[in-house]
Amino acid sequence: MPTTRLEQQMQFIREIDDLKSIERRTILRNNPRWENSAEHSWHVAISVWLLAEHSNDPIDRDKVIKMMLIHDIVEIDAGDTFVYDNSGMAEKEAKELAAAERLFNILPQDQATELRKIWDEFEAGETAEAKFAGSVDRLLPVTHNHDTGGKSWVDHNVTKSQVIERNQTINDGSNRLWHFAKGLIDNTAKKVGLRD
Amino acid sequence: MPTTRLEQQMQFIREIDDLKSIERRTILRNNPRWENSAEHSWHVAISVWLLAEHSNDPIDRDKVIKMMLIHDIVEIDAGDTFVYDNSGMAEKEAKELAAAERLFNILPQDQATELRKIWDEFEAGETAEAKFAGSVDRLLPVTHNHDTGGKSWVDHNVTKSQVIERNQTINDGSNRLWHFAKGLIDNTAKKVGLRD
Repeated sequence: MPTTRLEQQMQFIREIDDLKSIERRTILRNNPRWENSAEHSWHVAISVWLLAEHSNDPIDRDKVIKMMLIHDIVEIDAGDTFVYDNSGMAEKEAKELAAAERLFNILPQDQATELRKIWDEFEAGETAEAKFAGSVDRLLPVTHNHDTGGKSWVDHNVTKSQVIERNQTINDGSNRLWHFAKGLIDNTAKKVGLRD
Repeated sequence: MPTTRLEQQMQFIREIDDLKSIERRTILRNNPRWENSAEHSWHVAISVWLLAEHSNDPIDRDKVIKMMLIHDIVEIDAGDTFVYDNSGMAEKEAKELAAAERLFNILPQDQATELRKIWDEFEAGETAEAKFAGSVDRLLPVTHNHDTGGKSWVDHNVTKSQVIERNQTINDGSNRLWHFAKGLIDNTAKKVGLRD
């Protein structure tokens, strides 16, 4: 059992190495393999940094960066749920809550509370920071799908209206990013012949 | 050619997807594959957040998080250089400078300048933030090597004194993290029989 703060912190840091083994349903741009949730978290953390000016409302940019770093950590226990999998989405919440309980509590209590609070805020999706984080978290898979010929959508028989329904929440955090994403969706749907 | 700020930002965001394909000489804890530089960047970004209190000097924690997010981006063009590869280390600087020129300048000018400044600061290693970033960047591979039976060191015939020489700069950013790392090095060297 870890006894010092540093040992508790290092145990958490070791544990989250496993996020690198959680596969998502997104293909890399120049490498035919699935993306994992750790490298995705890195990508969205940089993206919110660079895109913050497009948020509908003023945001604490450094807080959104930290939000992105930990937003998917619960997948270590709960796995990644494909956003177009409706039955999976129903169980998702309970599994992720249990994972948050276990994982964040590896840390010293003050840090467990700090990280849990940010994760809860992301999940609730109510603050300007959480809305913008959600926007960028959705935008990147749309971009990847556009760049890889809609592969993830085509392989899973996703229709264009499903893509729009699932992604229009981008608009809640950023009208400008939703306008951009909608253009990519229209373009991809036409090119690969997604059903309406 | 991208014409708006958003298009320039999105072009950079797409370009850096390739960091997910740059392999490092570190094995994951529970998965027998090499770590890539994007997921490593995520891991050290969370780690500086959690370990900031162990810095020798007071630091701007959010700045170090951002430093970690971009510290390896130049590897997209320059590749990863194994820290025990002395000949490779000599060429490293020129290749990485050229990469920084190309990559950051994909962004709108103000953001190119912002990111380049942080990357230059990390490379120079002189501020408290850069020293602490360097400490954690070294600490994680030591931890990984400890947890995977010193695999990367054994496979590359690295001696214990080389490991100590390359990693004792951890001490510049954090005496406490160096004390911790030194314990892991001693322990691993003994267990796997590294030559002195």
